[in-house]
Amino acid sequence: MARLISLVEDASPLLREVSAGLVEHAGHAQIVGITGAPGVGKSTSTSAVVKGLRRAGRRVGVLAVDPSSPFSGGALLGDRVRMQEHAMDPGVYIRSMATRGHLGGLAWSSPQAIRVLDAAGCDVVLVETVGVGQSEVDVAGLADTTLVLLAPGMGDGIQVAKAGILEVGDVYVINKADRDGAAHVARDLRAMLALATHKDGDWRPPIVKTVASKGDGIDDVVAAIDQHREWMAGSGELRRRRLRRARDEIEAIAVTALRDRFGSLSGHADLDSLAGAVVGGGTDPYRAADTLLDTL
Amino acid sequence: MARLISLVEDASPLLREVSAGLVEHAGHAQIVGITGAPGVGKSTSTSAVVKGLRRAGRRVGVLAVDPSSPFSGGALLGDRVRMQEHAMDPGVYIRSMATRGHLGGLAWSSPQAIRVLDAAGCDVVLVETVGVGQSEVDVAGLADTTLVLLAPGMGDGIQVAKAGILEVGDVYVINKADRDGAAHVARDLRAMLALATHKDGDWRPPIVKTVASKGDGIDDVVAAIDQHREWMAGSGELRRRRLRRARDEIEAIAVTALRDRFGSLSGHADLDSLAGAVVGGGTDPYRAADTLLDTL
Repeated sequence: MARLISLVEDASPLLREVSAGLVEHAGHAQIVGITGAPGVGKSTSTSAVVKGLRRAGRRVGVLAVDPSSPFSGGALLGDRVRMQEHAMDPGVYIRSMATRGHLGGLAWSSPQAIRVLDAAGCDVVLVETVGVGQSEVDVAGLADTTLVLLAPGMGDGIQVAKAGILEVGDVYVINKADRDGAAHVARDLRAMLALATHKDGDWRPPIVKTVASKGDGIDDVVAAIDQHREWMAGSGELRRRRLRRARDEIEAIAVTALRDRFGSLSGHADLDSLAGAVVGGGTDPYRAADTLLDTL
Repeated sequence: MARLISLVEDASPLLREVSAGLVEHAGHAQIVGITGAPGVGKSTSTSAVVKGLRRAGRRVGVLAVDPSSPFSGGALLGDRVRMQEHAMDPGVYIRSMATRGHLGGLAWSSPQAIRVLDAAGCDVVLVETVGVGQSEVDVAGLADTTLVLLAPGMGDGIQVAKAGILEVGDVYVINKADRDGAAHVARDLRAMLALATHKDGDWRPPIVKTVASKGDGIDDVVAAIDQHREWMAGSGELRRRRLRRARDEIEAIAVTALRDRFGSLSGHADLDSLAGAVVGGGTDPYRAADTLLDTL
């Protein structure tokens, strides 16, 4: 598994060879995305959910995707430390993955890394991503079930709304629920969810309160994950999401292949000289893009 | 300006017509990106910096880009309320822009919207983006000068490091500097910046403390923005960044055009049936992408 995921990280040409074999064995796992702003306790919650899933007898894969550090190219030690308690459990596989800074890196590499964990026999693959914004939407696109984590004291209602979380959550988790303000966050969230357009017919995202550091409420999270899977399988939503994901993945691979071709046009010279012409005012980006596409 | 930016938002085919004219008049403005996690006071800071720039006699454009709400397709009222104090100033133009949810939407539309403000004669274009993660890297890619905002009480040191901010800031602003913990944040940041690899030769990102709600420290922010522009012009970095931006923009336009062609292949049928084959295990995404590219 480690070697296969390294192939994905390195964007190895060998992926093409193993891809067919992976597809054949994949499709069994429930892909669960976990997202939320820094400070809500994402890693602690992920670790607690892993424990809960293990208690329920599931084999668990964890993919910690870090789209926010494209330059450093790696995840920080903290996550690994938090995950260490699972190190001796053969039913848990944990892997951090960086996305190497290219736009759409997450879109390209994550589905393939998830497929490795899926094909290897994980019942649940948890995909943990950092932060809010674009990355969150990505994780929603990657997952069968998206958990959105909140915590008291992370800013006012407008900021919660701003973060775009109302559209992506299948299950909302209010962590640090023993702190002041947890009831307030739950009330705000409930009110805003009532106003929001539901993306999926009759599924009403539950709000679960946890104190992940103590394990409180984690079994409720696991139950909510199970309920969502059942609902999805019954409603046809599971297939719809997987089709959409396959579309996105095919497109991402095709676009990456095209970008590579752009880059290799006479040793980058073409794109560079087109960029120079745009900066100099000699052409506009549309005409430059036309030239680029004509050259292909 | 409003109509031109609407063309960008709507991805209108007319953009192609006006693009050459815009390029001709653009290139004068300093593009300043403002980013930071929810809760640091980004909108308040942006508004205060607008005031500071106006005191210095600059014409200012503000583009509030909201990549985190691709589903709702619009920015929230809060920003507009905060910006209202500039409503009667003819030297300030403020516009919110949504990115309509397509991956790379920010990459595609923001440079064009920025160019509208630039060509219209703004001396400084402030680009405010929500959140951390991928979006932050994007704003760094869009801007000549990137301001990263922090505030006390937003999580521990590892989370600051996680957010990927150490690589993108040209100027660091610690807002809410009158609160407990501001000195601590400054110390942590200084220590981490000392460890980080500097992306640009001899520029050492300054750390400026502000209380944006009172206007404290804002003139120092404006001075830091000016210094960075001077350094960039002298060192050649300005041209390097603009060339890189033009490359990215040309590529984004070309990729968008290709995506449109993917989508229009026999009324989406091809991509859908390829996705169905991948979900069913009949093919793998690489072979599906090959088929897609061959069909083009």
